[in-house]
Amino acid sequence: MVHLEKIEYKPMPVRDLLVEMKDISELMIDLAYSAALFHSRELAEDVLELEEHVDTLAYILGMNAMLAARDAEDAEALVGVSVVAAAANKISDAAADIAAIVLQEIGIHPIVREAFQKVEERLARAQVKPDSILIGQKLGELELAAKIGVDIIAIRRGKKWIINPKGDETVHKEDVLVARGAPLGIEEIKGLAEGTVQKLED
Amino acid sequence: MVHLEKIEYKPMPVRDLLVEMKDISELMIDLAYSAALFHSRELAEDVLELEEHVDTLAYILGMNAMLAARDAEDAEALVGVSVVAAAANKISDAAADIAAIVLQEIGIHPIVREAFQKVEERLARAQVKPDSILIGQKLGELELAAKIGVDIIAIRRGKKWIINPKGDETVHKEDVLVARGAPLGIEEIKGLAEGTVQKLED
Repeated sequence: MVHLEKIEYKPMPVRDLLVEMKDISELMIDLAYSAALFHSRELAEDVLELEEHVDTLAYILGMNAMLAARDAEDAEALVGVSVVAAAANKISDAAADIAAIVLQEIGIHPIVREAFQKVEERLARAQVKPDSILIGQKLGELELAAKIGVDIIAIRRGKKWIINPKGDETVHKEDVLVARGAPLGIEEIKGLAEGTVQKLED
Repeated sequence: MVHLEKIEYKPMPVRDLLVEMKDISELMIDLAYSAALFHSRELAEDVLELEEHVDTLAYILGMNAMLAARDAEDAEALVGVSVVAAAANKISDAAADIAAIVLQEIGIHPIVREAFQKVEERLARAQVKPDSILIGQKLGELELAAKIGVDIIAIRRGKKWIINPKGDETVHKEDVLVARGAPLGIEEIKGLAEGTVQKLED
C-alpha cells in the first residue's frame, strides 16, 4: 500500500489544495463508515487510496504555502492554513483506520454496525445501470439537490475518483455514484441509478 | 482547559458510548468549521469542551470494553470497536485543532474561509427568539427532515449541549439550534427560529 515515491513540487494554488483536502477527508469518513457497514473491501481499498492521495496533497500544499509566504504577516496567516490542512490529514487517517478494520477482517462487531446505522440512511453508493435515465445528463441540469435533496459527493469512473463533481460533469454508464442527503432522496437516487425509477420528480 | 480529574469507571453500554463518540466527533468538525468561518470564539470554546467530553467517553468506553470481553472471541470483536472509538477521538482532536486557531487569534486566512464556504450553505446556528413558532414544539412533530430537508443535530440550552436530540425533545425559548441540511432548508430554519418565518410549509 505504501508507495515511497518522491513527491515533487508542483505549483498549485494553496486554496484549491486545501479545499480538495477538506472535501476528500470528509468524504472518506462517510466512505469508511459505509465500508464497515456494507463490509465492502472495495470501498475500504478506495479509502486507503484516498488517504495516500491526501498525504500527497498535504506535501504539495506545504511546499506551496512556504513559497507563498513573502513576509512575516503572510507566514502568520498561512500557519492557520497549515493547521487546517493537518486537521484534514488527521481526519483522513482516522477514516483509513476504520477502513483497515474491514481489510484486516477483524470483523465488524454488531455494536459498530449499530453505531453506523444512521450513516446508511443518508448515504448511497449506486452504480449507473444501462437503462438509467441519468446517463448523458449533466449534474447541474439534474438539479438533484433542489429536487430530491441529494448531493452527488463523488463519482468513481473506472479507476478514477471524481470528488465533489461540478455541475458540468456528465453521468456515464457504469459510473459509481456516491450520494449524500435526506433518507427519501437517498432511496430515489438509488432507483434512478439502477433504472428502477424512470422519472425525476420535482 | 485541561482538567486532570480522575475518570472513574461507570457501567455503560459500549454501543451507546460509541454512538455518542461518533456523533459528537462528526458534529465537532462542522462546529469547528463554523467557528472558523464565523470567527466565533464561543463556538470554538464549545468545540474544545466537546473534545474533553469525547476524551472522557473514550476512557469509559475502554474500561467497559475490557469488562465486556469474556473470551478471546469477544476480545477480537471488541478490538474493532476500540479502533472505531480511537478514530472518532482522532476526528475530535482534528476539530479541536481547528477551533484552537480561532481562540489563538492566529487569524483566519481568506483561503481557509473560502475552503469552508460550502459548510456555511449546509449548516446553520440560530437562536430561538421569543416569537418563534418552534417554541414548545417537539422535534418529532415538526418533521423538519421531511418538510424542509433539515436535521437538528444539536441544541445548546444554557450551558448544556444536547447532541442528536431525539424526536421527543421540545424546543425552548433561547435554545441555540445547530441544523444541517439543504441550503434552502437552512435558510428556512433560521427564519423559523428567529421568528421571521411564521409558518412551516409542507
